[in-house]
Amino acid sequence: MAVFSDKISLSTKGFCDVHDITPRLREILSESGLREGVLSVILAGSTGGITTIEYERGVLADLCEVLEKITPSNKSYHHDAAWGDGNGFSHLRSALIGASASIPFSNGKLILGTWQQVVFLDFDNRPRERTLHVQLVGEK
Amino acid sequence: MAVFSDKISLSTKGFCDVHDITPRLREILSESGLREGVLSVILAGSTGGITTIEYERGVLADLCEVLEKITPSNKSYHHDAAWGDGNGFSHLRSALIGASASIPFSNGKLILGTWQQVVFLDFDNRPRERTLHVQLVGEK
Amino acid sequence: MAVFSDKISLSTKGFCDVHDITPRLREILSESGLREGVLSVILAGSTGGITTIEYERGVLADLCEVLEKITPSNKSYHHDAAWGDGNGFSHLRSALIGASASIPFSNGKLILGTWQQVVFLDFDNRPRERTLHVQLVGEK
Repeated sequence: MAVFSDKISLSTKGFCDVHDITPRLREILSESGLREGVLSVILAGSTGGITTIEYERGVLADLCEVLEKITPSNKSYHHDAAWGDGNGFSHLRSALIGASASIPFSNGKLILGTWQQVVFLDFDNRPRERTLHVQLVGEK
Repeated sequence: MAVFSDKISLSTKGFCDVHDITPRLREILSESGLREGVLSVILAGSTGGITTIEYERGVLADLCEVLEKITPSNKSYHHDAAWGDGNGFSHLRSALIGASASIPFSNGKLILGTWQQVVFLDFDNRPRERTLHVQLVGEK
Repeated sequence: MAVFSDKISLSTKGFCDVHDITPRLREILSESGLREGVLSVILAGSTGGITTIEYERGVLADLCEVLEKITPSNKSYHHDAAWGDGNGFSHLRSALIGASASIPFSNGKLILGTWQQVVFLDFDNRPRERTLHVQLVGEK
């Protein structure tokens, strides 16, 4: 049993900018040499989310529209009154979607469907340089 | 420390068809012989979700109604325009609820409340044969 | 590799009562002596949630307002018709937010942003004495 750590760096545009991080997660799993276990990935930050979805332009637009409906970006939030950075909606989306995900792996492969990708969603209201932390716990 | 893997097979009807998978997870934990650790369960697919809820007919209907309100099944989605399979709402619900869950266990038992079950929700718009993958990491 | 377990006790008021549990999680990680791995925390119960958010009064109020919009507390739910305890909305919020979270740690520290805290949200409609279970899997 062992733990293996790595990071993913992303330049993001904000406003529901979606990135497919599955290829990098597969690389990291391969580099780890681990065969059986669980991969955890997290954004150390409060204005992004991680989930699984088909990385297809249409459904990604649909997801961003649903989030816009639930947490409109043009609404005035208590958070904005307190801090004035205007990204209250970004924080809410992060708390709703979750900033981390756990994906099991077996036989050295992430357990994901063919049309299922792990995505990072940047909800902030400006471009960011993001770092995601990946931690694998498992055995060879 | 060890990793133990197993699968759960389900025949599902779609349209927010909810299955209590807790009994099978308890069996798998028992078979593993592990006493302390964390269980991860995932759907390798993009139109189902896993969460915890009381497996009671009323509240399950409530949950499906909330999801219908947030992501109506009769709305036209960009995903449907691209693919024509009419299950855009299924993908959105999967991304919102999440396709995986992590449940710690201790003394050989899943840490869950009496009225708290782990459920698989099939959101697709047709019957499916589903496989859930279960991965346990822990010690005896 | 080892597993380390602990608990967090909380007196909660219900109705979207938010508690920052990050300081206790940091203490537990420190006590474990583990340096690399993943921490899992769960409520063994069906009317609370765990997520990450900035622990700032404004955005916490915003989150509770969004949940009130999606799952109004004054609506009549099927669950309430069945059980009469009037907390159908509490169950729904727990299923939507999720009752557990996984946070990786590295170099003996939880991987979280400066403005990102792990919070427990009590959604019930009355005060409760709550116990959260924390399970760490990792190595020294």
